[in-house]
Amino acid sequence: MTRPRFSFSIAATDGKARTGTLAMRRGDIRTPAFMPVGTAATVKAMRPAEVRTAGADIILGNTYHLMLRPGAERMARLGGLHDFMGWDRPILTDSGGYQVMSLSALTKMSEEGVAFSSHIDGSKHMLSAERSMEIQRLLGSDIVMAFDECTKNGATRDEAALSMERSMRWARRSRDGFDAGADHAERSALFGIQQGALDEDLRLRSAQMLTEIGFDGYAVGGLAVGEGQEAMFATLDFAPNQLPADRPRYLMGVGKPDDIVGAVERGIDMFDCVLPTRSGRNGQAFTWAGPLNIRNARFAEDRAPLDPRCPCPVCTTWSRAYLHHLVKAGEMLGAMLMTQHNIHFYQALMQTMRDAIGEGRFAAFVRAFRADYRRA
Amino acid sequence: MTRPRFSFSIAATDGKARTGTLAMRRGDIRTPAFMPVGTAATVKAMRPAEVRTAGADIILGNTYHLMLRPGAERMARLGGLHDFMGWDRPILTDSGGYQVMSLSALTKMSEEGVAFSSHIDGSKHMLSAERSMEIQRLLGSDIVMAFDECTKNGATRDEAALSMERSMRWARRSRDGFDAGADHAERSALFGIQQGALDEDLRLRSAQMLTEIGFDGYAVGGLAVGEGQEAMFATLDFAPNQLPADRPRYLMGVGKPDDIVGAVERGIDMFDCVLPTRSGRNGQAFTWAGPLNIRNARFAEDRAPLDPRCPCPVCTTWSRAYLHHLVKAGEMLGAMLMTQHNIHFYQALMQTMRDAIGEGRFAAFVRAFRADYRRA
Repeated sequence: MTRPRFSFSIAATDGKARTGTLAMRRGDIRTPAFMPVGTAATVKAMRPAEVRTAGADIILGNTYHLMLRPGAERMARLGGLHDFMGWDRPILTDSGGYQVMSLSALTKMSEEGVAFSSHIDGSKHMLSAERSMEIQRLLGSDIVMAFDECTKNGATRDEAALSMERSMRWARRSRDGFDAGADHAERSALFGIQQGALDEDLRLRSAQMLTEIGFDGYAVGGLAVGEGQEAMFATLDFAPNQLPADRPRYLMGVGKPDDIVGAVERGIDMFDCVLPTRSGRNGQAFTWAGPLNIRNARFAEDRAPLDPRCPCPVCTTWSRAYLHHLVKAGEMLGAMLMTQHNIHFYQALMQTMRDAIGEGRFAAFVRAFRADYRRA
Repeated sequence: MTRPRFSFSIAATDGKARTGTLAMRRGDIRTPAFMPVGTAATVKAMRPAEVRTAGADIILGNTYHLMLRPGAERMARLGGLHDFMGWDRPILTDSGGYQVMSLSALTKMSEEGVAFSSHIDGSKHMLSAERSMEIQRLLGSDIVMAFDECTKNGATRDEAALSMERSMRWARRSRDGFDAGADHAERSALFGIQQGALDEDLRLRSAQMLTEIGFDGYAVGGLAVGEGQEAMFATLDFAPNQLPADRPRYLMGVGKPDDIVGAVERGIDMFDCVLPTRSGRNGQAFTWAGPLNIRNARFAEDRAPLDPRCPCPVCTTWSRAYLHHLVKAGEMLGAMLMTQHNIHFYQALMQTMRDAIGEGRFAAFVRAFRADYRRA
């Protein structure tokens, strides 16, 4: 039986929150979904099987990093990103637009796209809507993101409008570029990205233009860029509603557990963030009681697990005292286990929300979550 | 059924090579055995289950590192090294004598022992035969090593004699100190360490003194300290024979695959070395054709596994091209997978030798190994 290219079904809603399944060739994605970030063809410090065991249905790959190393054409010769890294389920790739502006040097932006120098070796590159679509096709991406400009936090309304309008022109070019790669387009999906900063009218215009072009799913872009949770939630009070209700909604680059809960409450279906992996490497564990820093001296003889409510392989095997020791000693296993716990915790958070929405008790879940979870 | 404290049985010999089983409370150790090094309560970049799956029956812990961090008394309060790190099979601990001289600062050696400052925080410590036995008891070691002085490479005969004689006095004190911890002594074993540099007479006197004291097993110490393979093998032509034939013989800190094969040929039963783990982190893989450096540009598009003859989880899943990418990008997963392969390779080498000795074809194995294996 051939699996569908892309099929999104909502099984239940509870308030604005939704739970469902996004079915694709390489597997089902249960929503709300959290996608661990596999920047350079690896979810840092995790084997693919460990990522899957934690509950992830899909991971994210970064176009910017992969185009520079190992390179998109090389990746295609090596059989694509899935074979290369040993992950056979769906992969979403970003467009490279965000990272090229934040990581590369000597960028020059024009209507055509972005010329830049690699942060690795200084080599010259060009990223445009067409090239981004080509790279994501060469990588073998399952969910391709349109090439856009992430409007800077603090932009004026005029700046935000101009930036959003350019992103919408690039969205049109992305749609055309994606469709031109017919073999790949038959097996993958394309998401558009809404911009418009914190402005309801701009967001609405962006949503209308994207919907007119037509995409498989829609991302809310330009948030989690320093505006703070309050402003983000205020924007999410209207932005998801402006997007087609029958299509998945993806909030890019979010976030902390309490950010994610608030965004699901406002109708978001998909998330990605480096936080569980990066924090894990830095000694921060996420728990149902809030984050904890395992370097703290009070954990030196604490024989309890990271999170007594967590059934993950780390919490059922090792103590806080051991993890404290590993992280203090700079041992790689410390980063491995902290990351593994955090990825499990994030996936457990998503599963708990899916269950609560499915059973019509999401508001009670949110109240209980907020009562227990202390932000650091 | 209670398992034995310590029972060594030789199932077969082939020339000087022997294969057998060392049975202990926490499990059997198949010999010849390679013990991965778990310096700071972790085999670097490996979970205990992965070390076990690779075929290891026993690992090594470092008294020097553990006495400084997390500390021996703290480890005892936390339930001992096995519980702490999640490894329930035998652990051999060294005495700390070698590392205190090579790693710590401001050492002052006397007949009593070694006073030193921690390389971590400069704190003052004393290590003696009695304290080493106490620390290894607090860690919960299964095989305790006598406290000795590792004679420096290049020592004169007189220096080597004086050093060896001091080690033999410390061996006596180690025996007494070990026996004084009666509860622990009933569940663990004590090994003596032969010294005497490259000198046959000194080695013989050392072996006689150790045998007179009486130990469960005997280590050949003071080799692999820069003397080179030829001198090491020349010493191993006589040293193991000087030790009791019915007791396990352990060559400390060895070594490269071809060192190990030559030592098994000369009657050694046990090995430990940081090479498979340390080399793995540095991008070197061991294969049946010899070591390879995965950073080499010729691997960038090589879709073959690290070693086509290796059935390990790394070689059956990922290509040289992927490992090349990970290591070049400085990704932790690169170190994890290279280490995992190397530990598997070392264990496969030991299993292959055990089989060959058991089937009386060890000489043929050694010829075939040397024909295929190109030293770097």
